[in-house]
Amino acid sequence: MFRLDKNSTYMMPAHFGGGAFDPTYKATMQAVLLNMAFETDRAALEQYIPEELELLSPEVQISLNQLTEINWLSGGHYNLVGVSSPVRFNGKKDHVDASYPLVMWENQTAPILTGREQTGVPKIFADIENLHILKPYYASSVSYEGNTFLTMNFEAGGEITGKDFERVKSQMKVLDLIGWRFIPKVGAPGADLSQFIYFPQWMEVREAWTGTGTFRWTELTPMQNPRQYHIISALASLPVKKMTRAILAEGEVVIDTLHSRVLE
Amino acid sequence: MFRLDKNSTYMMPAHFGGGAFDPTYKATMQAVLLNMAFETDRAALEQYIPEELELLSPEVQISLNQLTEINWLSGGHYNLVGVSSPVRFNGKKDHVDASYPLVMWENQTAPILTGREQTGVPKIFADIENLHILKPYYASSVSYEGNTFLTMNFEAGGEITGKDFERVKSQMKVLDLIGWRFIPKVGAPGADLSQFIYFPQWMEVREAWTGTGTFRWTELTPMQNPRQYHIISALASLPVKKMTRAILAEGEVVIDTLHSRVLE
Amino acid sequence: MFRLDKNSTYMMPAHFGGGAFDPTYKATMQAVLLNMAFETDRAALEQYIPEELELLSPEVQISLNQLTEINWLSGGHYNLVGVSSPVRFNGKKDHVDASYPLVMWENQTAPILTGREQTGVPKIFADIENLHILKPYYASSVSYEGNTFLTMNFEAGGEITGKDFERVKSQMKVLDLIGWRFIPKVGAPGADLSQFIYFPQWMEVREAWTGTGTFRWTELTPMQNPRQYHIISALASLPVKKMTRAILAEGEVVIDTLHSRVLE
Amino acid sequence: MFRLDKNSTYMMPAHFGGGAFDPTYKATMQAVLLNMAFETDRAALEQYIPEELELLSPEVQISLNQLTEINWLSGGHYNLVGVSSPVRFNGKKDHVDASYPLVMWENQTAPILTGREQTGVPKIFADIENLHILKPYYASSVSYEGNTFLTMNFEAGGEITGKDFERVKSQMKVLDLIGWRFIPKVGAPGADLSQFIYFPQWMEVREAWTGTGTFRWTELTPMQNPRQYHIISALASLPVKKMTRAILAEGEVVIDTLHSRVLE
Repeated sequence: MFRLDKNSTYMMPAHFGGGAFDPTYKATMQAVLLNMAFETDRAALEQYIPEELELLSPEVQISLNQLTEINWLSGGHYNLVGVSSPVRFNGKKDHVDASYPLVMWENQTAPILTGREQTGVPKIFADIENLHILKPYYASSVSYEGNTFLTMNFEAGGEITGKDFERVKSQMKVLDLIGWRFIPKVGAPGADLSQFIYFPQWMEVREAWTGTGTFRWTELTPMQNPRQYHIISALASLPVKKMTRAILAEGEVVIDTLHSRVLE
Repeated sequence: MFRLDKNSTYMMPAHFGGGAFDPTYKATMQAVLLNMAFETDRAALEQYIPEELELLSPEVQISLNQLTEINWLSGGHYNLVGVSSPVRFNGKKDHVDASYPLVMWENQTAPILTGREQTGVPKIFADIENLHILKPYYASSVSYEGNTFLTMNFEAGGEITGKDFERVKSQMKVLDLIGWRFIPKVGAPGADLSQFIYFPQWMEVREAWTGTGTFRWTELTPMQNPRQYHIISALASLPVKKMTRAILAEGEVVIDTLHSRVLE
Repeated sequence: MFRLDKNSTYMMPAHFGGGAFDPTYKATMQAVLLNMAFETDRAALEQYIPEELELLSPEVQISLNQLTEINWLSGGHYNLVGVSSPVRFNGKKDHVDASYPLVMWENQTAPILTGREQTGVPKIFADIENLHILKPYYASSVSYEGNTFLTMNFEAGGEITGKDFERVKSQMKVLDLIGWRFIPKVGAPGADLSQFIYFPQWMEVREAWTGTGTFRWTELTPMQNPRQYHIISALASLPVKKMTRAILAEGEVVIDTLHSRVLE
Repeated sequence: MFRLDKNSTYMMPAHFGGGAFDPTYKATMQAVLLNMAFETDRAALEQYIPEELELLSPEVQISLNQLTEINWLSGGHYNLVGVSSPVRFNGKKDHVDASYPLVMWENQTAPILTGREQTGVPKIFADIENLHILKPYYASSVSYEGNTFLTMNFEAGGEITGKDFERVKSQMKVLDLIGWRFIPKVGAPGADLSQFIYFPQWMEVREAWTGTGTFRWTELTPMQNPRQYHIISALASLPVKKMTRAILAEGEVVIDTLHSRVLE
């Protein structure tokens, strides 16, 4: 009969065996990152920030990441689109500033499962088209079962160099997240697990470009996207007061999953 | 700020709102089911049965389900391939017989998430081709990122009628599962949740056919399927002593998610 | 060395061998058909009708076909969305009434190639979602690389019975097409082949339902759909004066490819 | 009514308009190329070489191309796997050496249509996974409706430099093809068009690596791949006497479509 090994980590199905827990392990991957940010209305945004967190500024980031050469997927690749805001966790013990992912769409299920179950990042599925590139134009569309709900466009300006580049590199050295891991009760409302989890990651930027970024949400009906339409409508309802950032960057992303920890 | 409502159920991301917990709710869907079973070696199979369970017979079922008109997906559709064995849970309170899903591949992420997080069914992703039907031949292939790992073929014999049909209908009235919900600790080996969950479901069969079923596993390398290759190898290593069943059935599947409960 | 056999039919690549030409052969398949029609402006529509044809009425049909058990694909399946108008070919010899397909989107390449090269049906690729069915509601979306350009919705009314059903069955007995096979010159403007081809097909209807149908075009940019955006814009520009038909039908489609012939 | 413009080029559907014929136009794209070659048995290979051509050497090349930033697709991307042999066309007027594509699989329909109809390259559809890269290992799988039929693996050795690199660059300056454009008669065996077409293309190599390449064909049944199984079986039957080449290269591919011409 199958018995868990105390020194191993497991994901469902556990009974086919787990992996040795190795605290020096880091997930690494090559990334093309298209990142946009805008200022929104604080009250509108705070509707979606749990009361355990403090919203540091009414800013929303939308990031498309095209990931390749992923070590923990034996060289595989996938794309993600994350939407996040800067928050502070003020707990009994922990006082931590990080990005709070409101939602993260990914076009592959394996990282959705690890993200949700290990670190509480609210990942869900979407088709995310690889960037179409007709320099200086970049475009991608995000859809669910044939229903487009987000388009992102970028017109590259110049390459970022000198002190500006040093500043970008330094900003990207800390891309930590705070996930809210929520596992429901069985056959009843409420949670069996509800925890805030700190999750360190960063990007070693090799090259970056400024530019002009635009994005557009399209709201969907329940028949088009039964499990996500309310998320898309919520995000589409956030007013864009000012675009504050649009950047394209290439480099290596490092995720230090095993140094994630439950915040208290 | 967002606050959980005590009468609602949530999935991540919780902060966009949950749904009212309704204990009368049932998931319903139309199904075309191709089900095969074989007798295997008890010791080989027991390697993958957790010690909390008792293997009732050394039988493995492989079921392809083509699901449409799914009410909880607003009419959407997906396919699954489940591999399971009959077990008994002998707990302090509960003594329950049901199928234990060793693994369940699905070609859509949304039901993978609910299955894993709500009821501990070890669902993972695969591409599952809709049945190709050139009567009396039926065929499907299951693959991961272009790598076939399971093919299923069925040659239909006659329609099942009379007393045989009543027996099939009655067998399909109880397709209960026991899932093992395992949520890992953060930044350490071991589990934050490890529970066995009873999960009632059944099928109202409208029509069924006997026939000859065959299946074939193809083992994959870690570069072809980094997160699942060990599962496929384990299943491929189970000897097929005797095919004990091959059936094609059409009908309605009902999943009584909200009457699932943690076994003790 | 490879030599063509004079009694065989070939498609590229020809050098791996063709098939015996069999004039009794018919393509057959099971179909779920969602068909809508509307009256439009004659002058607007005639822009897209070649001058060799006469537009019989300013009507546009939009048909979604979900095809399974396709004999010439060994039991495979695919979906199509066709847009067509009723025309007459008045040639030196031939005087034929049929539907003229303005465009036909299909979600599989194999029938696109046979349709274009054998019978001049202007087939191009799109992702076409299987119908989502939450009775009485039916919905599908058609997209290209994540960019939705057509949504179709249908709310079923009653089943069609009696004389009405006989009329529907009889209408569906003739669904002939006239394709315009156009093969360009190499390295120069103009055509190496430009022919109108008559192509008989029909549907043996088993069941049909009336209902209310709606559709919506979304225009795309060249970066979203570089080879088709002008087609979508042309169709989106056709005014809908009146919806004249919305029907759902199930049955068998028969395509008599080998009795297709060049019109003169 | 629609009328063809004499200075424009068209593809089906022609009636929505064509493009100005511009003889200075070139298709350009970024490419990652994995190219392998092997020596085979001359008689075995000549079965698939039309008698109008002369096989220059019993060599087969298998090339995976991952194409991005494609100008004629407004920045889109797709993958192809081509299988070809070196041939000479000895016509009344033309004496041309080039590669003869036995088959070219592509994972996008638009270039399949242009390739077949404009230049007779025998393109057909397959799913072609982007390279999985776990340096120095590269892998891809090619499949049809979930059925793997070709896997390619490469273990990179050193970067090619100096004179060797100049030689590679120079080899890649001429990658011309000869296609056999074959358009069948309607409703009868035989061809309405059967032409050999010369088609110039090349690659401006930026970087290249030697390495060890392997590939493996898996034969499929008609139910798994009804329109291509015979092609796969033919290629799988070619003996690999000696691997003669395995190279990975990055650079720009240029296709001079408009200087393609019919060989006589």
